[in-house]
Amino acid sequence: MTPRFEKIAIIGLGLLGASVARAARRADVVECIAAASRRRGPMETALAAGIVDEIGGCEEVVRGADLVIVCSPIGVMAQLLERASPGFRPDALVTDVGSVKGPLADQIPAILPEGVEYIGSHPMAGSHERGAEHGRADLFEGAPCVLTPRVDTKGSSLARLSDFWQELGARVVIRTPEEHDVDVAWVSHVPHVVAFAFAHAFQEAPQRASELAGSGFRDFTRIGRSDSEMWSEILNANRKSLAGPLQAFGQSLAQLGAALEAGEVETHEEFLAQARQALERSATPSISSGAQRAPRLEEARSGGENPEISVGMVPANPRSVENDS
Amino acid sequence: MTPRFEKIAIIGLGLLGASVARAARRADVVECIAAASRRRGPMETALAAGIVDEIGGCEEVVRGADLVIVCSPIGVMAQLLERASPGFRPDALVTDVGSVKGPLADQIPAILPEGVEYIGSHPMAGSHERGAEHGRADLFEGAPCVLTPRVDTKGSSLARLSDFWQELGARVVIRTPEEHDVDVAWVSHVPHVVAFAFAHAFQEAPQRASELAGSGFRDFTRIGRSDSEMWSEILNANRKSLAGPLQAFGQSLAQLGAALEAGEVETHEEFLAQARQALERSATPSISSGAQRAPRLEEARSGGENPEISVGMVPANPRSVENDS
Repeated sequence: MTPRFEKIAIIGLGLLGASVARAARRADVVECIAAASRRRGPMETALAAGIVDEIGGCEEVVRGADLVIVCSPIGVMAQLLERASPGFRPDALVTDVGSVKGPLADQIPAILPEGVEYIGSHPMAGSHERGAEHGRADLFEGAPCVLTPRVDTKGSSLARLSDFWQELGARVVIRTPEEHDVDVAWVSHVPHVVAFAFAHAFQEAPQRASELAGSGFRDFTRIGRSDSEMWSEILNANRKSLAGPLQAFGQSLAQLGAALEAGEVETHEEFLAQARQALERSATPSISSGAQRAPRLEEARSGGENPEISVGMVPANPRSVENDS
Repeated sequence: MTPRFEKIAIIGLGLLGASVARAARRADVVECIAAASRRRGPMETALAAGIVDEIGGCEEVVRGADLVIVCSPIGVMAQLLERASPGFRPDALVTDVGSVKGPLADQIPAILPEGVEYIGSHPMAGSHERGAEHGRADLFEGAPCVLTPRVDTKGSSLARLSDFWQELGARVVIRTPEEHDVDVAWVSHVPHVVAFAFAHAFQEAPQRASELAGSGFRDFTRIGRSDSEMWSEILNANRKSLAGPLQAFGQSLAQLGAALEAGEVETHEEFLAQARQALERSATPSISSGAQRAPRLEEARSGGENPEISVGMVPANPRSVENDS
């Protein structure tokens, strides 16, 4: 099979960038992989290891690339794309792997030359490790990858990007940028805020307390160990969509706290039962529910533009993965 | 080797009671295991399977037992011990597996006949499954088990109980009942309250949001699926010790929420870094730190009474376990 892309350019060679390179190479979806990075070391290592075929500056690596994937921190994406801009092929497709999509969808298209299209991606995969040396070809296997087309996105471009991520093993989910930001606020950003707040409060616990910690404590606090610089940026970028879910959590907490303080056992037992039910309703979607929705993307794949894509999903491998920002 | 106990009586044959029976049998620490349970079915099944040797009512099963372990819900423990009271051997040692220790330490000794001693136990092990059929001989392996002697506890009794749990594979930690209740509020009860509150708020999330959930979401919410009846009782029983840690969490949350809302990136980045450090400081205690403390219990073992036991720890198998209430 001929690889789907002639050349992909990866801008930013950290954990995600290096994983995209390794996974794309393994899946044999591209002939040439080029990478630009702030630091020379990781680029040279990746080149020497055959993970990438070309290295260089932003403008240089995007030359001739039909797919450009920005894997830098979200705060510098626009700046890097501006720098790359003169090098773009007129029909290039640009995506990124950032954890917040609304602000990028507002910002990036205006930077790109006429004809160059942007669709956001958010592979919900990661690690506590940072850096290209931790990149893994299997990082995206079974991970949800959210694509965020806008109303003027070409269906054929969306289908092409969806194929790319599926080849890398991801389970593609379609959202508008705004829906994405609300959804990740619920399933990832609020949990992180809460875990960070708990961990911060834990400074006041007696030092001996952690001797009693078991697996429940470790699982609950795991995301509280995430990188503070990266997460501070993510939470700040999504603070608009975060506000509602965070307020809802605060209200639930106040309600449970009041019932506990008052010793209203029936009230808090009912609260706990509702909480459990909410999680049970939210269990991982089945293949069948995804398959029902897949035709919407099939329309896109057949070349129609502006398909109904507000909530669509193409299931791939539903098994669980290391995750998530 | 002669088993350490002649007869243990298990009152309450759910997941924990059945696991104690299976683990004690496997470790060969007792000649005879007797069990009483509210429901006949599990008792008869356990008897038929050879997991226990005798079944009967509370008073009946404690006859001749040198160790009595109450494995019922905490709210009915006092009542069951009252019922058992006429059957006690004058030198019996009584313990329980409840998740809250202060109220039991106040309540139980007064119920027991002269000479019968009570020391609380809290094996931090469990499962989302309930019922004797889910009992496992290896449930306590590597799990912290907190013992809560009081100032008048005989050192020899504490050593005996500590040996018992270590034979079952647990890592014994010594606390006063009050210290225990504060420590579990921090490492288990507040995390449960927070996970329940988050799960409850999650009812307001768009239904599509859970399609984006990854392993971070699952780990963070796992304890929110715990049994509501049992947890409602635990939280209510420990509400006095829970108040402070819960308030500290609320303050941390408000502080982080305000910094996020105001877009004070430096402030929340610093907050996140402190959170991470607090968790890193609390990492699982090493064998060596435990070993330094072991001599305190050695004093107890050699027969001295009222050893300095406020913070002591006897490490066994430090590997992680399914847990925890």
